[in-house]
Amino acid sequence: MPAEFEFLDWIRGQQRSGGLVRLAAGDDMAVLGWPGDELLLVGTDQVLDGVHFDSAVHTPRQIGRKVMNRNLSDCAAMACVPAGALATVALKRGSSADYAKELYLGLREAADAFDCPIIGGDTAAWEQKLVISVTILGRSAGIAPITRKGARAGDGIYVTGPLGGSILGRHMDFIPRIAEGRILGQSGVVTAMIDLSDGLSRDLRHICKQSAVGAEIDAAAMPIHSDAETLSRQSGRPALEHALHDGEDHELLFTASTPPPLGIRIGVITRSPTIMLKQGDRVAPLEAEGWEHRW
Amino acid sequence: MPAEFEFLDWIRGQQRSGGLVRLAAGDDMAVLGWPGDELLLVGTDQVLDGVHFDSAVHTPRQIGRKVMNRNLSDCAAMACVPAGALATVALKRGSSADYAKELYLGLREAADAFDCPIIGGDTAAWEQKLVISVTILGRSAGIAPITRKGARAGDGIYVTGPLGGSILGRHMDFIPRIAEGRILGQSGVVTAMIDLSDGLSRDLRHICKQSAVGAEIDAAAMPIHSDAETLSRQSGRPALEHALHDGEDHELLFTASTPPPLGIRIGVITRSPTIMLKQGDRVAPLEAEGWEHRW
Repeated sequence: MPAEFEFLDWIRGQQRSGGLVRLAAGDDMAVLGWPGDELLLVGTDQVLDGVHFDSAVHTPRQIGRKVMNRNLSDCAAMACVPAGALATVALKRGSSADYAKELYLGLREAADAFDCPIIGGDTAAWEQKLVISVTILGRSAGIAPITRKGARAGDGIYVTGPLGGSILGRHMDFIPRIAEGRILGQSGVVTAMIDLSDGLSRDLRHICKQSAVGAEIDAAAMPIHSDAETLSRQSGRPALEHALHDGEDHELLFTASTPPPLGIRIGVITRSPTIMLKQGDRVAPLEAEGWEHRW
Repeated sequence: MPAEFEFLDWIRGQQRSGGLVRLAAGDDMAVLGWPGDELLLVGTDQVLDGVHFDSAVHTPRQIGRKVMNRNLSDCAAMACVPAGALATVALKRGSSADYAKELYLGLREAADAFDCPIIGGDTAAWEQKLVISVTILGRSAGIAPITRKGARAGDGIYVTGPLGGSILGRHMDFIPRIAEGRILGQSGVVTAMIDLSDGLSRDLRHICKQSAVGAEIDAAAMPIHSDAETLSRQSGRPALEHALHDGEDHELLFTASTPPPLGIRIGVITRSPTIMLKQGDRVAPLEAEGWEHRW
C-alpha cells in the first residue's frame, strides 16, 4: 500500500477548480472567493463503522456517498446551495489503496450530483475501525436560510416523502432534497425546516422546542414507505410506528403558514408545547423513540 | 451518562455569538455573513487515539487543545485570521459527560486564544477509540494567503523557532504561530510557507515540489530545541537529526526573497530540485524521515 502522500497526489489529480474555489486541496488550506452578498452556511457530520454503516456489508463507494449525502441533506434543510466540502478519513490500517480511492469516489459521486467541489481533507490510518467526517459549506444564493425556529400555532406540518424502514437499505442510498429545499425556501411560506435523520418523533421535537410550540400529527395522513411495510412484517410492529420513529429517512420535515408548493401535510402546529398523535378519535402523546446516540 | 441531546444543550449554553456569526451551532448548519472583500480559507485535520495522542496518558483538555491548535496552525501557515471552527467527536462508549465537556473546553480554550468561535459539530459514541476532527475557517483580512508554491532560487529558508523532540510533550501543547504568520504575510517578502507538522525534512519537500525548486539546509544554522538535546541523550541519535526529522513542531517554515521581519535563517532555495544538507565541508542529500502515515 502506498503512503499517504501518493494517495494525496492521486486525489489532487481528481480535483476540478472553478466556481468560488481559488485554490483547492493541496496546501494548508483551500482558498475561496466569497460573494459578500451571500450568507455562508457551514455544517459537519460524521459516520462511524458499526454505527452508521457496516464495512463488512457496505461498499466504500456506498459509505462515501452516505456521509456526503448526510451533509448535503443539511444544506437541503437550510434551503442553501452546496458550495464545497472537506473530509477527514481514518482508515483501518491495512486498507488497500483501492479501498481509499473508492471511498473518495463515493464522496465525489454524491458531491458531483450537486456541483459541490471537494476542497480539502486529511487521511490517516489506525488500528481501529473506519471513521469519515465531512464538513460542508453552503451559500444562501438569494434565499434566506430556513432554521428550526419559526413555526407558529396553526402552521401546517409537512414532509417531502414517505417515511420508515430506511434500515432496509435506503439509509445508505438516499437523494438529498436540495432541489426541494430551494423551492420551499423560495416560496416564502415555510416557517421552519429540518431534515429527518433521527426519526420524525425526535426531529419534530427540535422544531417545537426551538419554536416554543407543540404539534399534532394525524396518523391517517402519514405517508408510509413500502420499506416500512416490509419491515413491519419482519418486526411485528405496525408500519406507522416505523414511519413515526425510524431514523435516516433524510426527507425534509417543515412547517408552512399557507399551503407550500410541495410536500405531504401530516399535521398542525399547536400552541400547547406537547407533541400529540391523533389516531381516529384518540389523541395521545407521541413519545420520542427515534435514533439517539447514547454513550 | 446523559444522552447526546443533553450534551448539546450544554454546548449551546457555552456559545457566544457576534463577529461574522449570525446563527451558531444548534440548527442544521451555522450561518455567517461573510465580508465579500475577504477570501475565505478552509482546512481540516483530525487526531486519533493511539496515533496523535494517547488517551491513557493525555487529558481530554489537552487532546481538545491539540486538535484545535493543529488547525489554527494551518491558519498561521496561510497568514490568515481564524474565523470559526467545527468539530466532530467520536467518543468511546462509556465516556463520562465530564470527559466530553473537558474535550469541548480544550477545543474552546485553544480557539478562544484567537477569538475563534466554535460554530458547529457532531458528537457520537462507538465501541472504538476516540477520534476528533476539526474544520477551521479563516479570513484573509487584508493579507494575501501565502501558499506552498512561490519559493524561488536564491530565497532564504527560515523557521520561527527551535525544532525537535516535540514528542517529549510539546506536541500536545504548542502555540500556533498565528501572530507570526500575519506579520510574515504582511511583510510582502515571504514567497512560500507551511507549518511544520510532519518534520522539516518532509515538509520542506512540499514547498520544493510545489515551487519546482530545491534547497540546501545549513546544519550549523539549525535551531535545535532543548527537547531535541534531551531526546538525543535517550535515543543516542544526534540532536540535529531530531531537529531535522521529528514531527509536530508546529513552527512555521518559510522562504523569503529578502530578510523577513522575524525567523531564523537555516538555508537557501536552489535551482536544482534536490534537498541537500551542508555539514561543514560535506553536502549530502537530506532524506525525508519525518512522520508519514502508512496504512
